[in-house]
Amino acid sequence: MEVRFGIEGRPLPVEQGENLLRAAHRAGVFVEAPCGGAGVCGRCRVKVVRGETEPPPRPDGFVRACRTSIASDLIVECSATAAGDRSGLEDRPRQQALAAEDLESVRERWGLQPSVKSCLLSLEPPTIRTNEADLSRLRRAIACECCRAAVEIDLDTLKELPQALRSGGWEVEVVVHRPIAPGSDAPEPSPRILRVSPGPRSAPLFAVAVDIGTTTVHAVLLDIETGRPLAQRGEYNDQRRFGEDVISRIDYACRGEGLAELQRAVVGTVNRIVDDLLAQTGIDRSRVLYLLAAGNTTMAHLALGLDPKYLRLDPYVPAARFFPPVAAEDLGIRLGRGAVCEFLPAVSSYVGGDIVSGVLAVGMEEDPRTTLYIDIGTNGEVVIGNREFLVTASCSAGPAFEGAGLRCGMRAAAGAVEAVRIRPQDGEPMALTVGLERARGICGSGAISLLSELVLSGILEQNGTFSHKDWNGRVREGAGGWEFAVVRSGQSATGEAIVLTEADIDNLMRAKGAIYAGCGALLGELGLAWRDIERVLVAGAFGSSLDLESAIAIGLLPDIDRDRFRFVGNGSLLGARLAAASMSAFAGAIRIAERMTNVELIANHTFQEEYTAAQFFPHTREDLFPVVWSRIRGRAGGEVRT
Amino acid sequence: MEVRFGIEGRPLPVEQGENLLRAAHRAGVFVEAPCGGAGVCGRCRVKVVRGETEPPPRPDGFVRACRTSIASDLIVECSATAAGDRSGLEDRPRQQALAAEDLESVRERWGLQPSVKSCLLSLEPPTIRTNEADLSRLRRAIACECCRAAVEIDLDTLKELPQALRSGGWEVEVVVHRPIAPGSDAPEPSPRILRVSPGPRSAPLFAVAVDIGTTTVHAVLLDIETGRPLAQRGEYNDQRRFGEDVISRIDYACRGEGLAELQRAVVGTVNRIVDDLLAQTGIDRSRVLYLLAAGNTTMAHLALGLDPKYLRLDPYVPAARFFPPVAAEDLGIRLGRGAVCEFLPAVSSYVGGDIVSGVLAVGMEEDPRTTLYIDIGTNGEVVIGNREFLVTASCSAGPAFEGAGLRCGMRAAAGAVEAVRIRPQDGEPMALTVGLERARGICGSGAISLLSELVLSGILEQNGTFSHKDWNGRVREGAGGWEFAVVRSGQSATGEAIVLTEADIDNLMRAKGAIYAGCGALLGELGLAWRDIERVLVAGAFGSSLDLESAIAIGLLPDIDRDRFRFVGNGSLLGARLAAASMSAFAGAIRIAERMTNVELIANHTFQEEYTAAQFFPHTREDLFPVVWSRIRGRAGGEVRT
Repeated sequence: MEVRFGIEGRPLPVEQGENLLRAAHRAGVFVEAPCGGAGVCGRCRVKVVRGETEPPPRPDGFVRACRTSIASDLIVECSATAAGDRSGLEDRPRQQALAAEDLESVRERWGLQPSVKSCLLSLEPPTIRTNEADLSRLRRAIACECCRAAVEIDLDTLKELPQALRSGGWEVEVVVHRPIAPGSDAPEPSPRILRVSPGPRSAPLFAVAVDIGTTTVHAVLLDIETGRPLAQRGEYNDQRRFGEDVISRIDYACRGEGLAELQRAVVGTVNRIVDDLLAQTGIDRSRVLYLLAAGNTTMAHLALGLDPKYLRLDPYVPAARFFPPVAAEDLGIRLGRGAVCEFLPAVSSYVGGDIVSGVLAVGMEEDPRTTLYIDIGTNGEVVIGNREFLVTASCSAGPAFEGAGLRCGMRAAAGAVEAVRIRPQDGEPMALTVGLERARGICGSGAISLLSELVLSGILEQNGTFSHKDWNGRVREGAGGWEFAVVRSGQSATGEAIVLTEADIDNLMRAKGAIYAGCGALLGELGLAWRDIERVLVAGAFGSSLDLESAIAIGLLPDIDRDRFRFVGNGSLLGARLAAASMSAFAGAIRIAERMTNVELIANHTFQEEYTAAQFFPHTREDLFPVVWSRIRGRAGGEVRT
Repeated sequence: MEVRFGIEGRPLPVEQGENLLRAAHRAGVFVEAPCGGAGVCGRCRVKVVRGETEPPPRPDGFVRACRTSIASDLIVECSATAAGDRSGLEDRPRQQALAAEDLESVRERWGLQPSVKSCLLSLEPPTIRTNEADLSRLRRAIACECCRAAVEIDLDTLKELPQALRSGGWEVEVVVHRPIAPGSDAPEPSPRILRVSPGPRSAPLFAVAVDIGTTTVHAVLLDIETGRPLAQRGEYNDQRRFGEDVISRIDYACRGEGLAELQRAVVGTVNRIVDDLLAQTGIDRSRVLYLLAAGNTTMAHLALGLDPKYLRLDPYVPAARFFPPVAAEDLGIRLGRGAVCEFLPAVSSYVGGDIVSGVLAVGMEEDPRTTLYIDIGTNGEVVIGNREFLVTASCSAGPAFEGAGLRCGMRAAAGAVEAVRIRPQDGEPMALTVGLERARGICGSGAISLLSELVLSGILEQNGTFSHKDWNGRVREGAGGWEFAVVRSGQSATGEAIVLTEADIDNLMRAKGAIYAGCGALLGELGLAWRDIERVLVAGAFGSSLDLESAIAIGLLPDIDRDRFRFVGNGSLLGARLAAASMSAFAGAIRIAERMTNVELIANHTFQEEYTAAQFFPHTREDLFPVVWSRIRGRAGGEVRT
């Protein structure tokens, strides 16, 4: 299904039911929508020339774009197309997600061999001539039919063994956990019996793969034997009430019972998610015996109850990178009896298991192509590498990209401005909000989108200060200095104008500069240049809503061939799913963590130079951003023509 | 120092201070002592012909033997020697303990390499360029300086790591436990960090080796690095209040909270012993990080809280033979923080870790000599083997040898008749009691001693019934049938005669028959005869007080060359000491348990025949007991002469 804006417009591929205002925005077609698409102002009227919509057009062909869904191939005319604006004709490549088949090939490489395995055993009952101990009999059967290495058993499980064997008539289900060696040179640890129950078993085993983020926790419930995901669920991390970012969490953990409170908070979140996943699927908790978590190093420390104090003190030393398996019960996580939890390994204090997990998910460590993997949040973690090498760094971006630290910043919740177009002729913004509601603030991706439009339209100078024109009063002096009102006070949900201030812009410049410079420093370490990067993989929830062109326009991402970019989504969760279903994938994660060279930017001279050079939109070196500069120059020309 | 009874008597080697009545008894010289040596009757007067005693002899040279200690070489005359009794001239070889040098050679074979090891590590403090995780840094240092394999760590220990490293200025003591594989074909389990403490350490590490017996618990405190024993302590097992023998304990464990009560009881006993050992030596509890226990299979199950129910139900299956290491804390045993407890492996439900431990202690599994190892208690466990093979069986002897189940039976406590001589001329007994007090009853070794004298003197027929003579009224018909009064009512502490009844004798005949037949069945399995047994090692507390000749005379032990017999004492404790100080000795115990073939006598036809043949004193086959029969015939002749 496709939509054309103007008869000569390029066809834009769309989904059945897609919102027409969003489609216009995506096509780069400016439609006035001062209320943010909330259905209030009626300014987004467009004319349907051909095709069907829901609701259908009025007799004269007009619809309010913000309230209209696409129901067939459409041709639409709007004031922009009528006025001969050619922006709808521009070739704006769609942001491409990493192809499902790429992920599938990674999955196939690892195969299915979960580290927690259920074995149904039918034992010969003992006789006076074959009266070996229950445990010996069980071990022998396990060695024959389940896993070759001798299994270990803890006392509590052994205590249940005699009754389990006999009440099941010598048919039992044994669940075995085969932990991965904490390092590729370490010997394989012995498998361990998690549970013995009278057979036959009632259902397959399930696992939960969890991405424990600072802000949100996402989990997938898997059939451990097929690797098939059955349900997914995300929740805000309850730790947020103790601080938004990892630093404030670490501070809190160092006070009184803080660590225990934080540990309980995240466990509470995980338990709530698990409860929901079980309710969604009707699966019995007793069959969920494995939880594999990926999280940044602070999240892993807090979830395990490890003191995070030294993560934030120079020289930034984690308690552990490779975390021992822990009984779910010992952590307070409510799964089946005997369930075990594992964490993917970290690289350093600020490059955690979430990044290792993402690198695993995209198969970077076995790919010949030199890839930049980038996860943008409060910290921007970047990895450059291929099957020969992997280097990583964490760039302290500050909370600007999360919407925090901006005057009107907010999370990407309903009413957050998330995407902006500015009509170059008059600086009029077309601001879409999450949920198409009246605007309440600006989220991170909205700020980047707005910033890039401000730069491209010449409203903002390259050094981050506003040009002198007032653009119909949208550029104005506010309480805290100059600002741009993207939504006027009369159109917002709050009654206040939604603005981006020079201070906000300064924050964003420092944040994008830190990330770009971090990549630059890694390239410097490797003796590589940007042109050597064959793929850029953008991960993270923020990455998914990020507009690629905007991110390049402000100098957050490099101005290289757009075909090289792919959006990964929640790479951490993807990798956790892989490792939950395949112990060789888990072992792969261990190797990745071992192989990855961590560069501490704080001690890196190249980084300081790169950072200074990046304090500009898009960058002080024009040659690094040829496309952006040609657009800036083109728009500037257009503006002159107005 | 030596004593001769009669000028022509054989010199008897004695210790300075040895009791003169005991020495006479040991020499086989009959001295009247109807009060049991309690210093009451004055009938044990003997004349010191030469030498010194304490107190010194009266002017006429007489002393009361029961109240007299030997102070120099002595020549003593008594009525027996005066009357020309030649018993003092008989060659009665001393019971020989297994030589200290034999035990030493076993110890040297294993060497010193305790499975719990303290390493003092001096780590390089981290810098921004070397900021690997605390655990990685520690593991690297451990791998260099402590043990090669990668160590595991549990979450609780990891939680303490960052603070321990920093408060010790990067000098730490790490205590590592290297568990033994539960089977020689199992891969070596990873070593595990038990504790990390800021260094330098205050003292060496200590271990406790424990023999958990059904009746008594004995323990030795060791310096783990030198293997040197520092203190030893024994206590009655508090479980006794729930039943005397393993069967009654198992029954109790199967009722309500019985298992938990029994577990707490034995742990309480161990804790009391440990408290005492620490008080004796002034050693700090925090330095005791290892406890190695040997016990019969029931004791091991109860101490670990494993359900013992199936030990006593056909087909007699233990929950486990190889027990996992357990944190001392989890068992309730109070040692240093992080301490671990292990149990030596068992062979079957009725051949336990105590026997494996004893076999280890005597080095049987590497000795070319075919050896019978025998531990006599409620169950008589027997092992026959050499470095080529090891077979074992448990013979259900019943409680007779423990003094229980006899009319006047008692434990070997003060007042228990423990050794008897009968004057063949008139059947007059010389009965020595424990503590040389007035008699209160008969203990196991006393019963065997008395029984053997009754048989040799012809008072008892070979089939276990009394001959018709009344022997001055000592053989008489009591309430429960015929009996022999070894102490008359007027001389006992209780005012009642101390007797051995025909029913008692029947019990003893069944008990000794079971053990002898068990050995016979094992020989039959192996196609060996008694003459092939090159050594007989008698273990157990009971074994130490057992009179060898008496045991042979009643047919409990075989009538073979006396030089082949050695008394081992508490073999279980000896082996536990070895295994606590040497992980290769522990591994040796595992191999022994694996190699040992368990023969269930209940299903063995040879045993039934052997048992029937052994229901006789000493045995129905005269050719098996040539020396005993020649003594029976000799005494019988002597009696005719009277």
